[in-house]
Amino acid sequence: MVESQPLASWNDGMAKSAILDFVARVTKEGGPEFAPRAERIATFDNDGTLCCEQPLQTQFHFAFDRVKELAAKDPTMAERPTFKAVLAHDYNTLFGLGKQALLELAFATHAGVTDEDFNEVARGWLATAKHPKFGRLFKQCVYRPQVELLAHLRANGFKTYIVSAGGVDFMRAFADEAYGVPREQVIGSSVKLRYDATGDRVSLTKLPELNLFNDREAKPLSIGLHIGHRPLLAFGNSDGDLPMMRYAKSGPGPRLALLLRHDDAEREVVYDREFRLSPLSEALDKADAYGLTLVSMKRDWKTVF
Amino acid sequence: MVESQPLASWNDGMAKSAILDFVARVTKEGGPEFAPRAERIATFDNDGTLCCEQPLQTQFHFAFDRVKELAAKDPTMAERPTFKAVLAHDYNTLFGLGKQALLELAFATHAGVTDEDFNEVARGWLATAKHPKFGRLFKQCVYRPQVELLAHLRANGFKTYIVSAGGVDFMRAFADEAYGVPREQVIGSSVKLRYDATGDRVSLTKLPELNLFNDREAKPLSIGLHIGHRPLLAFGNSDGDLPMMRYAKSGPGPRLALLLRHDDAEREVVYDREFRLSPLSEALDKADAYGLTLVSMKRDWKTVF
Repeated sequence: MVESQPLASWNDGMAKSAILDFVARVTKEGGPEFAPRAERIATFDNDGTLCCEQPLQTQFHFAFDRVKELAAKDPTMAERPTFKAVLAHDYNTLFGLGKQALLELAFATHAGVTDEDFNEVARGWLATAKHPKFGRLFKQCVYRPQVELLAHLRANGFKTYIVSAGGVDFMRAFADEAYGVPREQVIGSSVKLRYDATGDRVSLTKLPELNLFNDREAKPLSIGLHIGHRPLLAFGNSDGDLPMMRYAKSGPGPRLALLLRHDDAEREVVYDREFRLSPLSEALDKADAYGLTLVSMKRDWKTVF
Repeated sequence: MVESQPLASWNDGMAKSAILDFVARVTKEGGPEFAPRAERIATFDNDGTLCCEQPLQTQFHFAFDRVKELAAKDPTMAERPTFKAVLAHDYNTLFGLGKQALLELAFATHAGVTDEDFNEVARGWLATAKHPKFGRLFKQCVYRPQVELLAHLRANGFKTYIVSAGGVDFMRAFADEAYGVPREQVIGSSVKLRYDATGDRVSLTKLPELNLFNDREAKPLSIGLHIGHRPLLAFGNSDGDLPMMRYAKSGPGPRLALLLRHDDAEREVVYDREFRLSPLSEALDKADAYGLTLVSMKRDWKTVF
């Protein structure tokens, strides 16, 4: 594949140079830092790294809409504190209820169906659901510079992966269309699955039981299990991504670990340390020590969406 | 990629025709059974399907040699019944000790090291270890007709996966060289991993604790988690592969599930129901009911290795 102009939506500067230079070095045959294609693995966080995660990650909006739909069929649902808070749009109460309430929300909206039926439900929602602030479809609230970066990496023989705390089956419902990342290259949080064989038909049912919450240390561990390679490049935007970035960066040879800062109040939202769901703090304090390359949305991106 | 002659080591007959016909149908653009590239997933068992598993699966030979090596450094090892049986080549006693003993063997030989160091150990062994009967390197005891089938599928836009009860990191050490299947397309049994950050260095250590034994129902469940697609084609050789074959076969549209029979005493070994480690019984009895396509090593393959 020939790109007319790689990273067209990136401003010239240190971040863009670091990326172009890195890709040129690892793909230069005969060069001292050449990496064979088999080693060219790049892993990206999703929420806040590839797409907007404010005011809440897309998947929460999906879950809230799904609660409304399910509660319309089963009015007893609305009596439980978790769903009562959701239906009242009372997110402070919801998040104050703690981890068990969030799992209850996740299981009610992501389990009890086959993975294939869930895919249809998620795709149906994504086809029409719009972001409350930007007024465009959620699946279009992805960052254009990042889509170009993924394409530039693939054009240079990289296999691009999403490694996210988001639900794996939800992300698979739009990752190919939004990012060009196929379903099998999405690694995320998951519930346990059950094998059902009924007559001639075999299916996998999503159970209301956590298999893995894919955040922090779980990210490099998932990469070890699913990919079996240390990535050459990793990109994140929060402390939840730091173990993955450190894992990538501390391998031998050339490595690039990138950290996106949300510092553009005009075009997106400014936040880091105070974001309850996925704060950026340690990664920012120790960016130098860990060799992270900072990317500023405001400074480095010509366009955001 | 253009192949000069697909499946050159397959004899003309029902099995070869079924494969060529299936691939032609799902890749015929505009045809009634066309499957887009994103759907073209093929999953193969490893031991006994892609390579010889007699007298024992390759990984047992690796484990036995590794016990010898480790026992030479730690003589107390030889006092434990599991390792005593291994060192005495007393496999009846070993397998009679049951599941716990096999896990003890697996953990002693596959854990306590990083995944990257284990890869080096496995590759070192595979570089010289030879099959006791065939006298060739284990990694060359792979079936030529199957290597051609994998290549034919890839030439037609399929992504080929190994889905095996074998240890994932062991198979990753040779799957690319032997089959053209990259590390990230190998799914197997696994131990849990631990994230270690020491100074600047992050690594993943293989722990003596089972994460997953990837056999029977675990195979389709792993496919759901890792790939997120129902395969169009699945190939196995034992009851351990039956859930994966039924999962593939029972999807909508064209599907192919293939079952290899070891019926060639002259060129390989004859076995099915009586093989203790991985018997073939139900899949054979119900091959018709489940729509499995039988492949006879004796009848359908011109050459084996």
